[in-house]
Amino acid sequence: MDRIPILRMGKFLLVTIQIDLYDRLATNLESDLIQAVNKTEARGVLIDISALSIVDSFMGRILGNIGSMAKIMDAETVVVGMQPAVAITLIELGLELKGVHTALNVEKGMDLLKDRIGEEPEETEDDENSTE
Amino acid sequence: MDRIPILRMGKFLLVTIQIDLYDRLATNLESDLIQAVNKTEARGVLIDISALSIVDSFMGRILGNIGSMAKIMDAETVVVGMQPAVAITLIELGLELKGVHTALNVEKGMDLLKDRIGEEPEETEDDENSTE
Repeated sequence: MDRIPILRMGKFLLVTIQIDLYDRLATNLESDLIQAVNKTEARGVLIDISALSIVDSFMGRILGNIGSMAKIMDAETVVVGMQPAVAITLIELGLELKGVHTALNVEKGMDLLKDRIGEEPEETEDDENSTE
Repeated sequence: MDRIPILRMGKFLLVTIQIDLYDRLATNLESDLIQAVNKTEARGVLIDISALSIVDSFMGRILGNIGSMAKIMDAETVVVGMQPAVAITLIELGLELKGVHTALNVEKGMDLLKDRIGEEPEETEDDENSTE
């Protein structure tokens, strides 16, 4: 596989990273994503990394790159689903993922994006507040 | 990787299949998905296969299985992003993906699901005096 699929969901793009990014895959992902932001006029990019149990500095840099590139295109980037071990590794590697927001899961990430781009969340009829 | 991540998006679950499913991965996906439907009370399952340029009869059967299982749990399954070549192969293999809906992309798939489950599940059916 040389391309990771980019899914469009309204104003946002969703990418699920399931395998380790090697060079070409990462480069393709960067360029595909930026082109997709341009083409779809997306306001946000969600990157789900819940399948990754490990990240290295390369992956950390790619995520940072994507965040910076998207920012220039006026889109916010949210990395979601990070496993605790991955968070530990990232900090230990000294990678702070600057310019990238994080959220626990896709739904929370989407809420965060909606807040940031100043849009009223779509009317969902389950308005139970999180009381758990 | 032995698990494909399942993302929750409101009432729906989203799975992006990016690599060929071998036995264990497929079995895990089936069981994870059904458990996720049960746990999250999802009403629909979206399976994105846009990254697959080829499917074999095994994959076709797995998709059919998921559709049937989800149906029993009262969730509809929509396969989205199928490449033209894949559609051709499926029909040539004699796999019709019974019990599974299809849509061109995630957004259209979500619209289809919303239509089918009737977005707001308000029970306004007057089942008393039907005059026919």
